[in-house]
Amino acid sequence: MNFEFSSRVPKSDSDPVGDILKVAGKPGIISFAGGLPAPELFPIAGVKKAAEEVMDEDGAAALQYGSAKGVGKLIDTVVQRSKRDGVVTDADHVMISTGSQQAIDLTGKMFVDPGDTVIIERPTYLCAVDVFRSYGAHFVGVDMDDDGMRMDQLEQAIIDNPNTKVIYTVPNFQNPTGRTMSVERRKQMVQIAEKYNVMILEDNPYGAIRFTGENIPAVKSFDKTGHVIYMSTFSKILAPGIRVGWIVAGPQLIKKFTFMKQSADVHTDNFVQFVVAKFFAENDVEAHIKKISAMYVKRKDVMINAMKKYFPSDVKFSNPDGGMFLWVEVPGDVNTQAMFDECIKNNVAFVPGEPFYANNAPSGRFRLNFSNTPEDQIEIGIKRLASAIRKFQEVNA
Amino acid sequence: MNFEFSSRVPKSDSDPVGDILKVAGKPGIISFAGGLPAPELFPIAGVKKAAEEVMDEDGAAALQYGSAKGVGKLIDTVVQRSKRDGVVTDADHVMISTGSQQAIDLTGKMFVDPGDTVIIERPTYLCAVDVFRSYGAHFVGVDMDDDGMRMDQLEQAIIDNPNTKVIYTVPNFQNPTGRTMSVERRKQMVQIAEKYNVMILEDNPYGAIRFTGENIPAVKSFDKTGHVIYMSTFSKILAPGIRVGWIVAGPQLIKKFTFMKQSADVHTDNFVQFVVAKFFAENDVEAHIKKISAMYVKRKDVMINAMKKYFPSDVKFSNPDGGMFLWVEVPGDVNTQAMFDECIKNNVAFVPGEPFYANNAPSGRFRLNFSNTPEDQIEIGIKRLASAIRKFQEVNA
Repeated sequence: MNFEFSSRVPKSDSDPVGDILKVAGKPGIISFAGGLPAPELFPIAGVKKAAEEVMDEDGAAALQYGSAKGVGKLIDTVVQRSKRDGVVTDADHVMISTGSQQAIDLTGKMFVDPGDTVIIERPTYLCAVDVFRSYGAHFVGVDMDDDGMRMDQLEQAIIDNPNTKVIYTVPNFQNPTGRTMSVERRKQMVQIAEKYNVMILEDNPYGAIRFTGENIPAVKSFDKTGHVIYMSTFSKILAPGIRVGWIVAGPQLIKKFTFMKQSADVHTDNFVQFVVAKFFAENDVEAHIKKISAMYVKRKDVMINAMKKYFPSDVKFSNPDGGMFLWVEVPGDVNTQAMFDECIKNNVAFVPGEPFYANNAPSGRFRLNFSNTPEDQIEIGIKRLASAIRKFQEVNA
Repeated sequence: MNFEFSSRVPKSDSDPVGDILKVAGKPGIISFAGGLPAPELFPIAGVKKAAEEVMDEDGAAALQYGSAKGVGKLIDTVVQRSKRDGVVTDADHVMISTGSQQAIDLTGKMFVDPGDTVIIERPTYLCAVDVFRSYGAHFVGVDMDDDGMRMDQLEQAIIDNPNTKVIYTVPNFQNPTGRTMSVERRKQMVQIAEKYNVMILEDNPYGAIRFTGENIPAVKSFDKTGHVIYMSTFSKILAPGIRVGWIVAGPQLIKKFTFMKQSADVHTDNFVQFVVAKFFAENDVEAHIKKISAMYVKRKDVMINAMKKYFPSDVKFSNPDGGMFLWVEVPGDVNTQAMFDECIKNNVAFVPGEPFYANNAPSGRFRLNFSNTPEDQIEIGIKRLASAIRKFQEVNA
């Protein structure tokens, strides 16, 4: 039958990124494509113990319906954790979400009417584009440099698009580039948002996974007027299979978020909220995060060194201070989707650059993930990738 | 600051049902207001054991990102369970959702553009009204009798509203009335949906909790053309704090649902999906459901008998064959919100009828929940309720 879908549903059934990840997941392929944390470091024993204790101590409460806003103990955990990003807050400012993806979804639903402008970094997190698009967003991309989103372009974009509702940014170790926004830019961004009365959605999934340098205060930490919606997640510091994230915003806004969340899924799984709160109460999470960072920086360094060794010298790549991704730029008019097909023949995979742009994607870009591949495999994978790039460049020369 | 919300956000901050539940939850009040399962029967030990085994056997997989469609083992569990409702299906027809609330949300997002008509039962599940309203639905209510939604009115409603996209129904032990749709009506409903190319969203959270009579096949079991989206949940047979539900629909539609779900929350919590699948593999769930039904039918009978004994003889109420709710009709022009305030003084609570209607709510209706109150408290609560009704009737006479 022919379904009469709403305007929010993409006409096409094609899912290029889904197809890429499917191919990349085949046995024998060294995949830098996905965005998976290293499962070797999942705190399985700690989660098991926390789950046992939750069932022993709070079983009936954890299995009963809960509040849309979230479990009190977990909200307290979030309030405590927020301090490290300079976000001074309290329970009235926090809502638990079903992963941070839901925070993007609810923000899109609550602020974006069809035709409204959402400003994104060029490139940006591809699933954010999908969500905002489903609410009819018009996208305006702002270029980045090594200090993150360019503030001159941002202000001009808002002037050119007075119907701008949301600026979406991943300020720390951005997906896909690995870049981090400077503290100066963060302050400017807040000033611009206030000046033009636009919301900033600050998405910070990776901030805790820092390899070098000092922690930079969140954009939210400079917000005096309530224009910044801060969101983060336990995905990267605990485990992504546990779908628990959070929002920090003004109490008035948290009320609206909570009402809209109730319609979306009543509340986030109560059992896992209790488990995460218990896990934080009983474990040295900062030590655990240090372990994760130590493993990822080693993998990142192996990747950087292998790229230096094997890549053609005109290929550029970022060298992030944290997170899980880096960004590669191949010179010339290179179709990285076609290059992907060549690489698959060499049993190595990445994500081509195009899906990270809402429109007008430049050629020759792709994303590499370094968190999910052991060091020895990274060297082999980069070697394969290098020879595929060379071969592809020859064929297309 | 003044937020520029999208048209999907209610202008008002008022949340009458939230306020009712807050008042009803105060100590000393016997509450028939909420829709909570009996926590005494939550299988805490079974969930604990399942969680331990999942961590021991599948820890890394359960904590890693998973598929938006759901965990394979749990999808197999759903395929098996669907048979009892006459729904013959396979894994391609199933998607796991974050509670069945998410299935309503995604259906609204995917089928309802602003101004499109959604047909609902009068009265209906109030959170479904909230969700569809957030997508701009125009509501048309169809009256019910003891056999469920009236099919003559349904067909006329579609003829009168050619932009009808979805018919939303809770065919078994409906929330709020406790009524069940007859098998004849189910067949007619499918024929009408096919004739006018309208989707049916069949919401079946309570169907397994049957006290008397034979199980009636799902509306979906009569669907030959893919017009029925079937949804259900583990909330009422396992525990509602675990937010896991599911959708059964055609494979083409499941693909779209999966794409839209990925944008909403990436996937449902992997850990709890594994736990639910493990729980089903290791426990006699049918025996557990029998225990739940046995407790609820006793509570329901105590409530019915107390109402017969204490209520004014002109007050009508339903006597459901299963589920968690029954529906009361007080004659005359009675404002049940005002009656609620009177009842709270008597330390007893219910949910007034108005929120269960999208518009033109009749007076004198309210919902009682019988699953969450011990038998001795039910008798006391109904007595209090009866005296509040009488007092209210006198004052308003």
